[in-house]
Amino acid sequence: MSWFSLEDIQQAEAVLRPYLPETPLVQSYYLGDQSHRFFFKLESMQQTKSFKIRGALHKMLSLTQRERKLGVAAISSGNHGISVSYAAQLLGIAQAEIVVPETTPRSKMEKIAYFGGHVRPMGKNYDEAHRMGMQFIADSGMTFIDSCHNDPKIYAGQGTAMVEILRRNPDIDTVVVPIGGGGLATGTAVAAKALKPDIRVIAVQTAACPAMIHAYRDHVYYEEYPTTGETICDALVGGVGVLAYEMLKDYVDLIVEVSEESIRRAVVFLLEKEKIVAEGAGAITTAAVLEQPELFTGDNTALMVSGSNIDGKLLRQLQAEFA
Amino acid sequence: MSWFSLEDIQQAEAVLRPYLPETPLVQSYYLGDQSHRFFFKLESMQQTKSFKIRGALHKMLSLTQRERKLGVAAISSGNHGISVSYAAQLLGIAQAEIVVPETTPRSKMEKIAYFGGHVRPMGKNYDEAHRMGMQFIADSGMTFIDSCHNDPKIYAGQGTAMVEILRRNPDIDTVVVPIGGGGLATGTAVAAKALKPDIRVIAVQTAACPAMIHAYRDHVYYEEYPTTGETICDALVGGVGVLAYEMLKDYVDLIVEVSEESIRRAVVFLLEKEKIVAEGAGAITTAAVLEQPELFTGDNTALMVSGSNIDGKLLRQLQAEFA
Repeated sequence: MSWFSLEDIQQAEAVLRPYLPETPLVQSYYLGDQSHRFFFKLESMQQTKSFKIRGALHKMLSLTQRERKLGVAAISSGNHGISVSYAAQLLGIAQAEIVVPETTPRSKMEKIAYFGGHVRPMGKNYDEAHRMGMQFIADSGMTFIDSCHNDPKIYAGQGTAMVEILRRNPDIDTVVVPIGGGGLATGTAVAAKALKPDIRVIAVQTAACPAMIHAYRDHVYYEEYPTTGETICDALVGGVGVLAYEMLKDYVDLIVEVSEESIRRAVVFLLEKEKIVAEGAGAITTAAVLEQPELFTGDNTALMVSGSNIDGKLLRQLQAEFA
Repeated sequence: MSWFSLEDIQQAEAVLRPYLPETPLVQSYYLGDQSHRFFFKLESMQQTKSFKIRGALHKMLSLTQRERKLGVAAISSGNHGISVSYAAQLLGIAQAEIVVPETTPRSKMEKIAYFGGHVRPMGKNYDEAHRMGMQFIADSGMTFIDSCHNDPKIYAGQGTAMVEILRRNPDIDTVVVPIGGGGLATGTAVAAKALKPDIRVIAVQTAACPAMIHAYRDHVYYEEYPTTGETICDALVGGVGVLAYEMLKDYVDLIVEVSEESIRRAVVFLLEKEKIVAEGAGAITTAAVLEQPELFTGDNTALMVSGSNIDGKLLRQLQAEFA
């Protein structure tokens, strides 16, 4: 079942263009060689510092004036929350409520509030925040802005980065994309295969939470999924989106799992060698290349760097590890 | 006396375009407000991680086949050396000798060698390296690639970043640029004033080496200039170029001096807030805005981020200072 298509993504791209400057696609000097080139798609340089603004803004642009007046709400302590907060400011939506668990670090709450949204702590963990938040939103009449569960508008928005990549460099023959919930991976894969059927799409999960890999292995839709061990990929934990689960397998060539150790190393490699700031999730595509180079044999490979919202303290800690 | 003009810069821009992808111009979210916007011109994202490639490559593209066969040489342990090394590789110039003082840290030598050039340590300090290097180059028949002393081809190349800025955003009304030798500042100022006569050009020097400020104050051309105290702006130490000294005053509106403390703070601000990696010289324009915000009243101000070749260890040290 196909819930959205290239046409939806292209329409999203046209709608978003006046609001979001194209993000850079820059060549790596340190990965690859003269005949195998790697390019970084720097979604990390969105104003919100992650690709999530694409889906959130696309959805919010589709709301009626009445819906905009009633306000929007999201449940997220991370990049999606920041993006909804920022998009509301951009569109003059006065009320934007971002529900976060009460345990969310102050620095994350401040970041969301900085972009204009109102942070509303609820519940002791993400599950409680989600349950209480959904009730609160239903009662309030605000529009719920989904992160990556089942809203095709969100998925189509996330696919627009791929349109930019192929417009900027039509020679790209491989694209590597992180999977958490699967919004970016599915949007990217749908756009890529429709625009260039022989392109190779490789998706990457952290070994600390290989939800999609296990969902396909077990033939079970895991809406929630536990992490095993520590992860620096906040953006990639939890279960998978239902649209992602239903669609991704038809478009992706390979899903690989990489270790947290490789991801930590990749953050420092990107910072110190390539001079690119990336959060764990944003560095995971580079981690895959560093850990399993034999998989990446394309002539022109694009690595999605999905975000750069990394805490200063964590960054210093990683730099010290690999000094 | 005008040694080069907008036409030379535009010609350089056309010649360089097939070799150097346009660098991003990204809006700051943390500086300014809704009616005063700041943009970073990320020369830090050149493949060589600094703007110096523009001048070096422009000069080297002008060499005859015979000159290319005889090879090129430069005297620099920093960004200019890296750029000449890289440009030689790009153009298939087999012999590229980069003369550096014997005291140059191994990490800097490795960086130059990584980009393909041959590192040739000579002399105990920069002055000795320069004297011995010039003799060596004269004897060898190689073409000397000047950094920012008196070669109009180099200056015209450095001016091309400004052409990109105004093409990308014609609303820019203020441009802020670092001064060391003055190549980038002079190239930028000449391009800016010719393309948009009412634009404001502000140049910034470190208080640790205000060579141009003192040259104009004293009416003395300082080919060499001592640093006072420690600086993290390797790229901005020493005297000024003769073309810069003769031309810049006619094009620049203001030259400001900022403290090393502000520069150190700006490197960390750029890294942790804006998620941009910058070396000291690259952060100096941001440092000026943070230190003396009252000077920057334009509606749309472009800050030149000239480079990102900062040592990992120094970066960690600065992060720890402002943690």
